[in-house]
Amino acid sequence: MGKDKKLFEYIFNPNSVAIIGASPQDLATLAQMSTKIKDRLFLVNPKYGEVRGMKCYPSILQVGHEVDYAILIVSATVVPQVLEECIQKGVKVAQIYTAGFSETGMPERIELEHRLRQAAEGRIRVIGPNCFGVYCPRSGLAIVPEAPEEEGHIGVVAQSGSVAESFSYFAKTKNLRFSKMVSYGNGVDLDGSDFLEYLADDPDTKIIAFYIEGTRNGEGLKRALTVAAMKKPVVAIKGGMSEQGMRAAASHTASLAGTPAVWRSFFRQAGAIQVESFDEMLNTVMALDRCPLPRGRAVSIITNSGGFSVIQTDLCQKAGMEVPRFSAETLEALRSMVPLAGTSIGNPLDAWPIYYNVSSSGNIGDIVRTVASDRNIHSLVFQFDQFRYLRRALGPGVEAHMRILIDLMVEGCLRAREEEKKPVVICVSLDPYLEDEEDRNYNLRIKRAFSDQGFPVYATLDGAVRALFSLYRFAKRPSPSPFLP
Amino acid sequence: MGKDKKLFEYIFNPNSVAIIGASPQDLATLAQMSTKIKDRLFLVNPKYGEVRGMKCYPSILQVGHEVDYAILIVSATVVPQVLEECIQKGVKVAQIYTAGFSETGMPERIELEHRLRQAAEGRIRVIGPNCFGVYCPRSGLAIVPEAPEEEGHIGVVAQSGSVAESFSYFAKTKNLRFSKMVSYGNGVDLDGSDFLEYLADDPDTKIIAFYIEGTRNGEGLKRALTVAAMKKPVVAIKGGMSEQGMRAAASHTASLAGTPAVWRSFFRQAGAIQVESFDEMLNTVMALDRCPLPRGRAVSIITNSGGFSVIQTDLCQKAGMEVPRFSAETLEALRSMVPLAGTSIGNPLDAWPIYYNVSSSGNIGDIVRTVASDRNIHSLVFQFDQFRYLRRALGPGVEAHMRILIDLMVEGCLRAREEEKKPVVICVSLDPYLEDEEDRNYNLRIKRAFSDQGFPVYATLDGAVRALFSLYRFAKRPSPSPFLP
Repeated sequence: MGKDKKLFEYIFNPNSVAIIGASPQDLATLAQMSTKIKDRLFLVNPKYGEVRGMKCYPSILQVGHEVDYAILIVSATVVPQVLEECIQKGVKVAQIYTAGFSETGMPERIELEHRLRQAAEGRIRVIGPNCFGVYCPRSGLAIVPEAPEEEGHIGVVAQSGSVAESFSYFAKTKNLRFSKMVSYGNGVDLDGSDFLEYLADDPDTKIIAFYIEGTRNGEGLKRALTVAAMKKPVVAIKGGMSEQGMRAAASHTASLAGTPAVWRSFFRQAGAIQVESFDEMLNTVMALDRCPLPRGRAVSIITNSGGFSVIQTDLCQKAGMEVPRFSAETLEALRSMVPLAGTSIGNPLDAWPIYYNVSSSGNIGDIVRTVASDRNIHSLVFQFDQFRYLRRALGPGVEAHMRILIDLMVEGCLRAREEEKKPVVICVSLDPYLEDEEDRNYNLRIKRAFSDQGFPVYATLDGAVRALFSLYRFAKRPSPSPFLP
Repeated sequence: MGKDKKLFEYIFNPNSVAIIGASPQDLATLAQMSTKIKDRLFLVNPKYGEVRGMKCYPSILQVGHEVDYAILIVSATVVPQVLEECIQKGVKVAQIYTAGFSETGMPERIELEHRLRQAAEGRIRVIGPNCFGVYCPRSGLAIVPEAPEEEGHIGVVAQSGSVAESFSYFAKTKNLRFSKMVSYGNGVDLDGSDFLEYLADDPDTKIIAFYIEGTRNGEGLKRALTVAAMKKPVVAIKGGMSEQGMRAAASHTASLAGTPAVWRSFFRQAGAIQVESFDEMLNTVMALDRCPLPRGRAVSIITNSGGFSVIQTDLCQKAGMEVPRFSAETLEALRSMVPLAGTSIGNPLDAWPIYYNVSSSGNIGDIVRTVASDRNIHSLVFQFDQFRYLRRALGPGVEAHMRILIDLMVEGCLRAREEEKKPVVICVSLDPYLEDEEDRNYNLRIKRAFSDQGFPVYATLDGAVRALFSLYRFAKRPSPSPFLP
């Protein structure tokens, strides 16, 4: 299964697409109608003559054009009949959006899914049921209307529709761009291993994010994951690690689940980077997308608060990183640039007065480069949380000050990354509920300034440090088992 | 030390305050000038005749009024001389904002701090050096200009100035109100144990948040912490738990530090709720401030995503909570209200279609109350992350829909809290960097609707669950050791 290159052309770049069960308020319909795929789109629903100005056919059999890819959003009990029509029409792939199959735990719905599998076998390929399908900026297939139209090189394989939806929805916010994304739900036909196998060899995909709840084909999955992880980083999350999480997974995608220990060793042996929450997955993908790999676990933190730098050092060590002393040369250089009082000249560097210096030397840019050049340091976390203080101290002068300061900070981090080839990750601290619009807007502006230069930017230091630790784990991964392909 | 009630009147409610070293751009000056304390404030600095329109004296000796409390923001080397003037003037308490003492690690600065301690002994009480001082809404003493003027009943004792500053700054965002807050830095005279001892008996303070890096008086601290924790919840964080964090703490407040294991057992024996990050501390204080205590660790999660509900269940179990099955009665009641397809009728309850039902029965309010009444459940997490879907599906109709929906959700949670006496915590998911203003504004509106009714609201489910776990830990705390007072 899944070895057919042509099959994946039908999935990610179909010549034409039908939505069966299209309606004016349906999210899948809205998503496809908002991208360029609309020029190759046919809507089907006997209830409507048109939907949002587009002709709507009573049945797929009445569409006077070949259809490669059909999205089914009809009710579960009608799915078998509609699938027969798709087969009759010569549709290559049916993505069954509809839920209400084995995941309900009801015998008649489990039987319905079973019949679906049998009906499809050898006659049509199926994605789903109980899934959101495909997002591919190149073809225009979409999960949400807001996702970027630009292509990137992150691939996503997610058993959960809302995990895929969240990746698409937060793409712009997180400055992430994708090659191909697929949500496959209950996976009666094509499943995680098929998509991993394809993305492993897809030249457009450089990083793979993988969300799985369970599989019926453990051996196939292990093979596919191992091969993929040999070729590119695979960040993986297993939903349902805990006993009660497994129960939740069973009622979500009817997945069989192993024990946490089994899954942990499974991912470790396969060479995947296992993470434990969706945020950690996003954060890790951002770091992999935008950083060279670190040569070790020693991190330097540049921050602006004594108390927080202490807590942050604890968090770093807890996350598996180290915050070693700077070399004597670095300390000496820093002492000439950072005032003594109220600062800590060491690692972490708590050096708030430097944010007031925007002159041509000894400024924040010079400090970042000094710290990055320390031979004991393998990566750098630059945390900015100073705007609220600058604003209070400088009053109306803050705008002119910030213009220069932002350039200095970004320029310093750029040179650190380019000259030292070390990962530089940025934390621009921002509370989600902050309603002070001036503080918020300046912090967003700083976030964008870094993000535009290709830095991963995190709203919490904890997020930044954990992402670095994943980068380190990937850099130091053991070679894959020799007996695997 | 610190037993003198009158002393704490001078600290938190002084008749008059002087700022020595006041200047137009100094944050401490700005903070005091922005509150009602300005009517009892004297500025001192020989460099200025006035500061922002207020008379400025060349020396404290020239102030023609008694001064209870003096804030020193002069440079470190001048502090001893200014302190002598304060003593001569009869000042009761000097808060030394100035840094650059033992925390620099430099022998002459350690000596300077030593001389300071000796000079003060028996002649004047000292807070600091290297600290931000006091925030007390009743008197008007302030750390930042933005903190709320209304009083509350949370007390904060923080060795770190920026930890105290962050509490004040985020008070409005987090809907937290404080009785008294103090940052005491290097603590040459008054330290954590003195303030804990005072707040333990302060009738205005019902919850204490405590940030400590280290102490010179471990026995005194343990006694004060134990007594305080017997009388009210104390949420504590030790900065510098890790080896490298201890080094950072030494260069921050020159604190002596024990091993992580020593500190963990110290907090456990004292009956304090130890947390590991500032966010966790804020989150825990919010939960303690607004929830009854849970009778057990069983939590129910109402959410709107299958994949996330699985990950969230894992997070709950990892955090120490349980997500048990609902009773048969609850399941039966839910089945009559929640459609089958695409949902999971169980715990967690992934029931997104209910957000589309704003009719008078079977709506989200009824569902919240049904779940809360389950006898197997001790607390409830209500997660709302549905606005972006509702907006896409309902278009311009979303505003009218949301008006009713918000009322139903808040009303349901209110009744659940009041009828069942169980903690109800809210998660309104919001990414800090989200720039979609419509999504952001609606989510903030929902957050405020819950917050206004006294619910703790978190931007992440993980934050909500960890706060609940702290609440559970407090509810189940062992009795304090019998040999302690």
